[in-house]
Parts: sequence; structure tokens; C-alpha cells
Amino acid sequence: MPKQFAVIGLGRFGSSVARTLTELGHEVLAIDSDEDRIQEALPYVTHAVQADATDEEALKALGIRNFDVVVVAIGADIQASILATLILKELGVPHIVVKAQNHRHGQVLYKIGADEVVFPERDMGVRVARHLVSPNILDYIELADDYSIAEVVASDNMDGKTLRELDIRAKFGCNVLAIKSGTRINIAPRADDVIRSGDILVVVGRNDDLRRLQDKA
Amino acid sequence: MPKQFAVIGLGRFGSSVARTLTELGHEVLAIDSDEDRIQEALPYVTHAVQADATDEEALKALGIRNFDVVVVAIGADIQASILATLILKELGVPHIVVKAQNHRHGQVLYKIGADEVVFPERDMGVRVARHLVSPNILDYIELADDYSIAEVVASDNMDGKTLRELDIRAKFGCNVLAIKSGTRINIAPRADDVIRSGDILVVVGRNDDLRRLQDKA
Ligand SMILES: Nc1ncnc2c1ncn2[C@@H]1O[C@H](COP(=O)(O)OP(=O)(O)OP(=O)(O)O)[C@@H](O)[C@H]1O
Ligand SMILES: Nc1ncnc2c1ncn2[C@@H]1O[C@H](COP(=O)(O)OP(=O)(O)OP(=O)(O)O)[C@@H](O)[C@H]1O
Ligand SMILES: [Ca+2]
Ligand SMILES: [Ca+2]
Ligand SMILES: [Ca+2]
Ligand SMILES: [Ca+2]
Repeated sequence: MPKQFAVIGLGRFGSSVARTLTELGHEVLAIDSDEDRIQEALPYVTHAVQADATDEEALKALGIRNFDVVVVAIGADIQASILATLILKELGVPHIVVKAQNHRHGQVLYKIGADEVVFPERDMGVRVARHLVSPNILDYIELADDYSIAEVVASDNMDGKTLRELDIRAKFGCNVLAIKSGTRINIAPRADDVIRSGDILVVVGRNDDLRRLQDKA
Repeated sequence: MPKQFAVIGLGRFGSSVARTLTELGHEVLAIDSDEDRIQEALPYVTHAVQADATDEEALKALGIRNFDVVVVAIGADIQASILATLILKELGVPHIVVKAQNHRHGQVLYKIGADEVVFPERDMGVRVARHLVSPNILDYIELADDYSIAEVVASDNMDGKTLRELDIRAKFGCNVLAIKSGTRINIAPRADDVIRSGDILVVVGRNDDLRRLQDKA
């Protein structure tokens, strides 16, 4: 069943949340104190309303308590973000997600009842740094501290070789789960499948083995 | 071999990049025009220097051309971000990564020679929105448009059942690749392995099958 979402604060993060929720088929009310931001949001959300989220009466008038999830993405004005969260909690919003500026801000938000606190810049900083250090690991899921599924880009070193020739299991202790070639995906790779430069290998293994593999990929 | 990184602009994103690169064992020079930011960065980077990145002589004096990768994470001041990128390109920095404020800014950055442009707030907005819509999908790797590996959290519905009883392959067309239980990880799940509420199933399948599974998980 589609849920009802409200997003307060339409900076880069908040507007991306609002747009994506809309694209995923949900009703989204976008709120910002800046009328310009409301005009920009109108094309890609269900409703957009100018209001000050630190004004309890304004939020009540919007029926904010009837929303399943409210996302507070007010950035620089930490005081406004805290006050808005307090009011939403008091009004009984079931799930409140708040963007925090820093660790201390995040702690305060949890104390006053935020259900989830997110640190978009910090988290994306970690992802980008990891990508810079291992440029041909495109994405990964950490299975354990030491063990991941990763997407490794094949370079010229692997071009034209079969999985048997590359012998990834014996040489690197990793297993190839799938091979992406452009828009095609091979989810049952066999020993005689040929790798092309630019193919993406989805591989599971220990982190240091995956690092060794991507160095040679 | 550890690489030499410089990070210009120590907002939330830039400082997270600098800190993570340092933690991953690399040399990092952090640069900001604001002396306060430099003081904050000193404990977690190799070097931190106050300088204006739109000042070509200042960047030359820092030997910026000898760095393998320079990350420009100047935010609000789009003009400064563009000018700094131009200077770095002229000085011959081999790999330049720039944080963009919006799509238009990103296009300009690519035109003047940025090697990678990142949109941290936009990308994290997409991730958070997807997580709100599918709260018990923790992370995922998109294998194809329609096909992913996802981490699905098991709830009470699955508690105490074996994989055989849950019959995920027949009922949802998905395959369980691994089961995470606290810090333990089972990478060769068998039919008689028992799932506990809170376990994380690493599952591969079509996106709509994964969605059906997480609704029932
Ligand atoms: N009291 C308030 N009520 C409603 N909206 C508000 C309030 N205070 C600030 N906003 C809005 O929140 C939005 C985000 O704020 P700001 O740009 O400071 O955050 P930010 O963290 O820099 O954003 P991002 O990095 O995601 O672009 C702005 O559009 C601003 O108008
Ligand atoms: N010309 C410049 N030279 C060096 N540093 C600069 C320059 N202009 C701005 N900066 C620094 O860049 C940093 C990031 O800028 P700003 O806070 O505007 O970005 P932001 O996108 O809001 O950051 P974030 O969302 O990651 O916190 C600031 O610490 C600022 O002092
Ligand atoms: Ca305005
Ligand atoms: Ca930001
Ligand atoms: Ca200052
Ligand atoms: Ca991922």
C-alpha cells in the first residue's frame, strides 16, 4: 500500500528524497519556508506548500499527524531542525527521519524522539573515499567485517579470458556470482564464459582477497 | 602503494572524505580557506593548511601538481569551485573529483575537465527514499535494471523457521546467498538452517520478487 510522506526542507538532500519517493509511486507533501523552493518542487511532488516547520499551528493545519513518515531535511538552521522534530513528535507522527549536521546534533535528535537520524554528507564522503582508493570496485555489500560482495570492473588484463583461465577462486579465494556485460546479466557464470574489458564481475570473498583481485582486474 | 590525496573544502562531505582516506592508510593534505576548519581537521589528516583554492600561486606553492587525486568539495560558492577546478586542471593534476551543487554545475565541471563529478546530497536522498519505502531492505547492489542482490531483515514472521520451511526459492523466485546473524556470517546456507528474527538474509532475485519477499519477511 502506498504510504503518505511529508518532506520538510527542500535543499539538495530533501528535494532528492521527495522526488525519489514520488517516482516510487508514493504521495509526497513537500514543505519549505522558502516560496522559491516550493515553486521548484511543484513539478515533481504531489503537493508543495510554503510553511514554517517551527510553527506548530501551521503543521497542524496541514494535518501533519496523518502522515506515515515525515522527513526533516532542514540543514544549516540546527535550532529549527530540533524544534520541528519536537513538534512532530508531540503531534504524534509515527515515524520521523531527520538529517543531522554533525554527531552532536544527531545525539540531540535521538534524545527528543527522532526515529532515524541520517548524515548524508558524512556517509557519502565515506563511500566516495572508498571508491577513490579502489576505483574499480563500483559497489559492495559488507557481509561481515571482513567479507563482502563487490562489483569489480574487468580491465584489459582480463579481456578475452575465460573464468577457467582466470582461475579467480584458486588465485584469489573469491567466487564470481554474476557477470554484467552492458545491459546483459549472466547470473550463472560457467568456467568457459569469456570476460571482456569493461564487464563487471559480481564477486564474493574476503576484503583483502577482493582488494588483491581488483588490483589485478 | 598508498596514493597522495588532497581535499579542498572541509564541509561535512569534504571532511568525511579526508578522514576516511586517512583511515584507509593514505596521505591526505586538507585545504580550506577557513582557519577554524583547518584546526578541526588537524587531528585526523596528515597535513592541513589554510589556503584559498582560487589562488593559483597558493596552490602551486603547496605542490598540488604532485598529488595523484585532488577532491574539490567547495559547496555553496559555485564560482570558487569552478575556478579551483580550472586551476587544478591547468596545473596538470592527474585526477580531479568535484562535488557539484546541481546538474548544471556538474555539466560545467565536466566541460572544464573534472574527471569525476559527485552529487552527495542527491545520491544519498535517493538511497534514503528507497530505504523508507522498503525499510527492511538494508542495502543492495543492482545487477541489472530489474535484478538485484539485497539485504533483507527477517522479522518475527520468519523466526524459528528453516530455509526449507520458508521455501523462498519456490515462493519468491529468490536465492539466499548468505545469512548474517549478529557478527556471524553463514556463506553457504543449507535447507535446514534456522532463521531468527533480526537475521539478515542476503538474497538475489528480480526486484519485484525481492519486494514481495521483504513485505513477507
Ligand atoms: N523553519 C523552516 N521551515 C521550513 N523549511 C525550512 C526551515 N528552515 C529552513 N528551511 C528550508 O530547509 C532547506 C534546507 O536547508 P539548508 O539549505 O540550510 O540545508 P543543507 O543541509 O545545506 O541542504 P543540502 O546540503 O541538502 O542542500 C532550505 O530550502 C530552507 O529554506
Ligand atoms: N576558495 C576557497 N578555498 C578553499 N576553501 C574554500 C573556498 N571556498 C569555500 N571553501 C570551504 O569549503 C568548505 C565547504 O563549503 P560549504 O560549507 O559551502 O559546502 P557545503 O556543500 O554546504 O558542504 P557540506 O554540505 O558538505 O557540509 C567550507 O569549509 C569553506 O570554508
Ligand atoms: Ca528565496
Ligand atoms: Ca550539504
Ligand atoms: Ca570561521
Ligand atoms: Ca550498496
